[in-house]
Amino acid sequence: MADLNLMRGLTRNEGGKILLLVMDGLGGLPRQSDGLTELEAARTPNMDRLAREGSVGLSIPVTRGITPGSGPAHFALFGYDPLEYNVGRGVLSAVGVGVDVGENDVAARGNFATIDQNGLITDRRAGRIPTSETIKRLELLRQIKLPQVEVELVPEKEYRFVMVMRGKKLNANITDTDPQVTGKPPLCTKANEPEAHRTAEIVNRWVSEARQVLQGQEPANMVLLRGFASDPRLPKWQDIFKLKAACVAVYPMYKGIAKLVGMEVIETKSEDTPADQFKRVAQVWPDYDFVFCHIKQTDSRGEDGNFDAKVAVIEAVDSALPALLDLNPAVLIVTGDHSTPAKHRAHSWHPVPTLLYAPETHMPDRAQSFGERECLYGALGQFYAVDMMPMALAHAKRLEKFGA
Amino acid sequence: MADLNLMRGLTRNEGGKILLLVMDGLGGLPRQSDGLTELEAARTPNMDRLAREGSVGLSIPVTRGITPGSGPAHFALFGYDPLEYNVGRGVLSAVGVGVDVGENDVAARGNFATIDQNGLITDRRAGRIPTSETIKRLELLRQIKLPQVEVELVPEKEYRFVMVMRGKKLNANITDTDPQVTGKPPLCTKANEPEAHRTAEIVNRWVSEARQVLQGQEPANMVLLRGFASDPRLPKWQDIFKLKAACVAVYPMYKGIAKLVGMEVIETKSEDTPADQFKRVAQVWPDYDFVFCHIKQTDSRGEDGNFDAKVAVIEAVDSALPALLDLNPAVLIVTGDHSTPAKHRAHSWHPVPTLLYAPETHMPDRAQSFGERECLYGALGQFYAVDMMPMALAHAKRLEKFGA
Repeated sequence: MADLNLMRGLTRNEGGKILLLVMDGLGGLPRQSDGLTELEAARTPNMDRLAREGSVGLSIPVTRGITPGSGPAHFALFGYDPLEYNVGRGVLSAVGVGVDVGENDVAARGNFATIDQNGLITDRRAGRIPTSETIKRLELLRQIKLPQVEVELVPEKEYRFVMVMRGKKLNANITDTDPQVTGKPPLCTKANEPEAHRTAEIVNRWVSEARQVLQGQEPANMVLLRGFASDPRLPKWQDIFKLKAACVAVYPMYKGIAKLVGMEVIETKSEDTPADQFKRVAQVWPDYDFVFCHIKQTDSRGEDGNFDAKVAVIEAVDSALPALLDLNPAVLIVTGDHSTPAKHRAHSWHPVPTLLYAPETHMPDRAQSFGERECLYGALGQFYAVDMMPMALAHAKRLEKFGA
Repeated sequence: MADLNLMRGLTRNEGGKILLLVMDGLGGLPRQSDGLTELEAARTPNMDRLAREGSVGLSIPVTRGITPGSGPAHFALFGYDPLEYNVGRGVLSAVGVGVDVGENDVAARGNFATIDQNGLITDRRAGRIPTSETIKRLELLRQIKLPQVEVELVPEKEYRFVMVMRGKKLNANITDTDPQVTGKPPLCTKANEPEAHRTAEIVNRWVSEARQVLQGQEPANMVLLRGFASDPRLPKWQDIFKLKAACVAVYPMYKGIAKLVGMEVIETKSEDTPADQFKRVAQVWPDYDFVFCHIKQTDSRGEDGNFDAKVAVIEAVDSALPALLDLNPAVLIVTGDHSTPAKHRAHSWHPVPTLLYAPETHMPDRAQSFGERECLYGALGQFYAVDMMPMALAHAKRLEKFGA
């Protein structure tokens, strides 16, 4: 696998434009009735044509057998070895809601939860209270004052929020307070190294006060914190790939990841359809070398276990696709960050169907349509997702020769 | 490739049961008459059905072009990078005959050999003397006394034995005394680092005395030692994979390897057929999360150069296979540790046909039978053997998601 220093040395400041379309959780598994996966069952004449003319293959998000979260899966697609650049959930959530995590900051992902009179968790999501309720309770929590540490609290969707602590000598190497199961009490956070003791104490004190403040606020009468993390200081795309890149995503987390690697985040509305998102792509296309467009609903419907609904999302993407093709990108890649088979109702480790369309340089293979089994016989083979950016840059003629 | 620390962090303490069937040296090469390999020529209706319904592929034991011994090949299948965990032959042989190799011990593999009056080796295997003759001669060698070092000698099959030296500050980093060819004298062992000088001197002194003791004991009038090694201290499966595992193998070495990774070794008889071994598997199946079943004869017949006999072994395994299928493992993997083409009469570097059957999660591919060429187009692609355990654990739902 190419490393970032190699890429930094080979990338050119010019070349073709690249369009990366990620359908989150794209990969699937066969349904009982006819043995077809979601992508195989979907009517996708546009993607099928691209697959016939271009190259297809299967991408392995992390390594074989490993099921990735959305964070590592996207970092891999963006060229960062996810085992080397393991960015904490707290940071992903923070940047996703537009909060910067600075050098001295520690961020965490928060849930409102329900505890019973014995202090045991009865619902880790507080009955999925609406965002408006989360906003009200965060207002209460802002009354808590800690010495020498400032706490920023930002609502996410429903019962979720982000907590960012700002102060000196904070250390994110502490454990979650979320036990990830019901029937147990929330955990005290513990330091994983001596330097993190003070931070653990501060968090435990804040959680203890939060519990008092939230008394009687059922169903959201407790907070659970996880994924404590600080600024990952990733090398930026401008430097390593010499790309001016934009992100057209609807969900906060993907915007956050895009920011972390140096992309500019284009404004979207939470109700934007794939067709709406493609219009945004077209609007900003002239201003960027690279546009990343992220479709969330394939993953959501996979996690719902709703095969037909996932098929419908894929079909909606396909029917809107001509708007992207009209932009004539030098390189168009259609892929997913990981698989989310409806049959499995969760992310999985299965390799992800990938399509590379670069008319000047792609190697046509024998694939007749875009689907898991056709991709098995494709020109891209089975490859690690971290190698996708080098391939994209190569097809855009943005890489110098290695060695004389 | 996933590393063991990653796996240790992701493995769960529950999930489905896994059955790993290894036909040693399974991979082959086409015969002249009809261009079929041993596995392709064998009548294997059961494995063919599993291949049609499940996923197939080809495993690369170490890296491309590298022919492995049975040790590294099995360590790779068991999830240990064989280039990182290079366990010496002496240790493998010792644990294979039930001798523990402790912290202060050095083990070696011994052969009885024949030397002529000029001291040149005429037969590296002493005419393959029966085990009973080896036992008699080891009794003679036990008379040799060395200062501060205790020597344990244990017979293996025929002309083979294991030597374990116990004492303080022994160091296994010394060269073989077996030149691996006839017509040359046995070698003096040499230290590969200064700390091993004393051990090399001790070994040379012992070999010199052994030669005197064995004078007149033709055809076994000399010893050859190789594979000096000490305790590899492997991380154990209980820790890294959270598996309670059992080994059903007939040959000592495979039992030894299984012990080294933390499996429990089930009693077998040396004359057990594949069907007998499968009965043992069924007997112990309720008590374990994972059972490894090792069939030796595929490799032996490949090394004999006997294509038809290797086919017959494969067919015997296939016809006994329903006994394993009746156990309904969540994951069944059928593979080899390496290839031993009858045409080649030796281990080879060719990727090894592999079949993964996990009805809940496998991706059916277009393979119609189990054989080298069908595996080329399988859903598993060509993968490194060290990635097999992560895949097996994933399909058994024994792995947590990596990252958020």
